[in-house]
Amino acid sequence: MQFLERLNQAIRANDSMLCIGLDPDLERFPAHLPRDPSSILAFNRAIIEATADLVCAYKPNLAFYLVHGEAGLRALVETRRLIPPQIPVILDAKAGDIASTSAAYAQAFFDRWGFDAVTVHPYLGEDGLAPFLRAPGRGVFVLVKTSNPGAGELQDVPVRADGSEEPLYLHVARRVARWNERYGSCGLVVGATYPAELAAVRRQHPDLPILVPGVGAQAGDLEAAVPSGLAGAAAPIVVNATRSVIYASQGPDFAAAARAAALALRDAINRARPTR
Amino acid sequence: MQFLERLNQAIRANDSMLCIGLDPDLERFPAHLPRDPSSILAFNRAIIEATADLVCAYKPNLAFYLVHGEAGLRALVETRRLIPPQIPVILDAKAGDIASTSAAYAQAFFDRWGFDAVTVHPYLGEDGLAPFLRAPGRGVFVLVKTSNPGAGELQDVPVRADGSEEPLYLHVARRVARWNERYGSCGLVVGATYPAELAAVRRQHPDLPILVPGVGAQAGDLEAAVPSGLAGAAAPIVVNATRSVIYASQGPDFAAAARAAALALRDAINRARPTR
Repeated sequence: MQFLERLNQAIRANDSMLCIGLDPDLERFPAHLPRDPSSILAFNRAIIEATADLVCAYKPNLAFYLVHGEAGLRALVETRRLIPPQIPVILDAKAGDIASTSAAYAQAFFDRWGFDAVTVHPYLGEDGLAPFLRAPGRGVFVLVKTSNPGAGELQDVPVRADGSEEPLYLHVARRVARWNERYGSCGLVVGATYPAELAAVRRQHPDLPILVPGVGAQAGDLEAAVPSGLAGAAAPIVVNATRSVIYASQGPDFAAAARAAALALRDAINRARPTR
Repeated sequence: MQFLERLNQAIRANDSMLCIGLDPDLERFPAHLPRDPSSILAFNRAIIEATADLVCAYKPNLAFYLVHGEAGLRALVETRRLIPPQIPVILDAKAGDIASTSAAYAQAFFDRWGFDAVTVHPYLGEDGLAPFLRAPGRGVFVLVKTSNPGAGELQDVPVRADGSEEPLYLHVARRVARWNERYGSCGLVVGATYPAELAAVRRQHPDLPILVPGVGAQAGDLEAAVPSGLAGAAAPIVVNATRSVIYASQGPDFAAAARAAALALRDAINRARPTR
C-alpha cells in the first residue's frame, strides 16, 4: 500500500491530523524518571499508550536519540516497534546525500528500523534522493519552507525558472511535484509559522500531503495554518506538535497531561478545518 | 585553536591536502575479514595506521555506520578515538535542522564523539546552523555544489539577489562567507566533478577552506579540480577520496594497497597545484 493511503487511513480511523513528535529531552522528563537514556523507552511508551488513538502519525527526530549514543539508538528502534502498525511513523532525519549514501540511510531507516517515512533536504536534487523516493510503500517529506525564524534567508530568495520568477521554496515544491509524478511517494514540509507560504504551496499542490511542524512551542498559528493547508486540498496535512504535548507536565501525571494536550490540539485542528 | 589553523597544520605536517573517506561497506571488505559490523573497527584501524602520515583529514560518513545500528555507532565513535589528535576528523553527516535540534546534533558530534568538523545543508539558513557555527574550535563545511550528477537541478537555478543574478550555489557560498565573518568556522563543499564551478567559488572566496569530494570512484577530474580550487587561494582545499583508496584491494594486502593509492593521490594533488 502507498504511504499516502496508509496515512489517510490513520487520519480517518482517529479523526485526527495530529502528529506527535517524540524527541526525548532528559532535562524535561518527569521528575520521577531517572535522568538517564534508559528512561527514554519508558517515557515514549507512556506517551504512545496515552495518545495512539488521537494521532495520525508519530515523528521521532533522530538527533534526540543519537545524542545518547548506542542507548539512544536502541531506544529509537524499540520506540518504532512500540507504535501500533496502523500508525505511520515519520523519522525526522532531514537526510540528503549522494545516491550511494542515501541508499545506506534508506536501508537503515526503512528496511532495518521499519520507519514508514523520512524527512529530507532537497538541495542535492532527485538523483541523490532516489533511494528514498523509490522505496516501496514509504513516504518522503521534502523540506520546502521550514518553521525556523530564519527560514527565509535562502528559502525566500527569488529564483528564475521557466521564464517566471518565484521564491526558492515554491520552486522546490514544484520540483518535488515532478518527482512525485515518477515515484508517488512525496510529501512537503511547510512550517505552521508561515501560514501565507503554506497557503501558496497548497494552492499549487492540492494533491501532495504536507507535514506542518511548528505548532506549540514554536508558536505556529493553528487557526491560520490549518485552513491555509487544507483549502482546496485533495491530500491531507499532518500537523506536528512536540514539546507542548509530551512535556505538558513534569509530574507523575505526564502521560495524562500529554493526552489532554493531544486531545485539545486534535480537536482544535478539526475545528479549524475549512467547511466544504 | 581555530579549526582552520589545525587543518593547515595537518596539511603542512604531512605535505598533503588528501582526506580519506572512511565509509565501511562490508561487501567490499577484504575477503579474510568476517562480513560483520565487528570487522569495521579492525578495517578502519588498518587503513588509518597505513595512511595517517599521508593525509590532512579523515571523513567518515554517518550513514555507513548507522546502517549497522548500535554496533556501527560504536565503531564510529571508536574510529574517531583511533585517529591521531593532530589529524582533524570531519563527520560527514549533512546535518541541517532547526536550532534546538542542531544543538542536540552538535552535542553528539562535537562534545560527545569528539569530531572536529561536520558537513551541513544550507537550506535552513544561519539560525538553524548556529549551534554548529559557534562551537569553539570546530569547523562547519556547508554544501555549496555537491558532487552528484544531478547537483545542478537546484544548485544551478538562477537566483536574484542584491540586484544581480547568480546560480544558487554561488548565492549559498556568499551567505556562508557572511556567516564566517561572524563565526570564523566555515568551509564550503564543492565536488571535484565540477571544476568550473569550483573555480568560480574560489574566485569569490579565497579565504574559505573548500572540501572537495568526488575524486576516485566518482571520477572527479583531479588535474582540473586542484588548480581550480587553489588559484589565488589563501585557504586550502581538502580533496576527499574514499572507495578508490580504502577498497584498492580486497586481498590481505588491503592496507598496503590503500597506502599506495593514498600516496599516489597525495602526490598527484601536489603535482597539480598551480605554481606560484
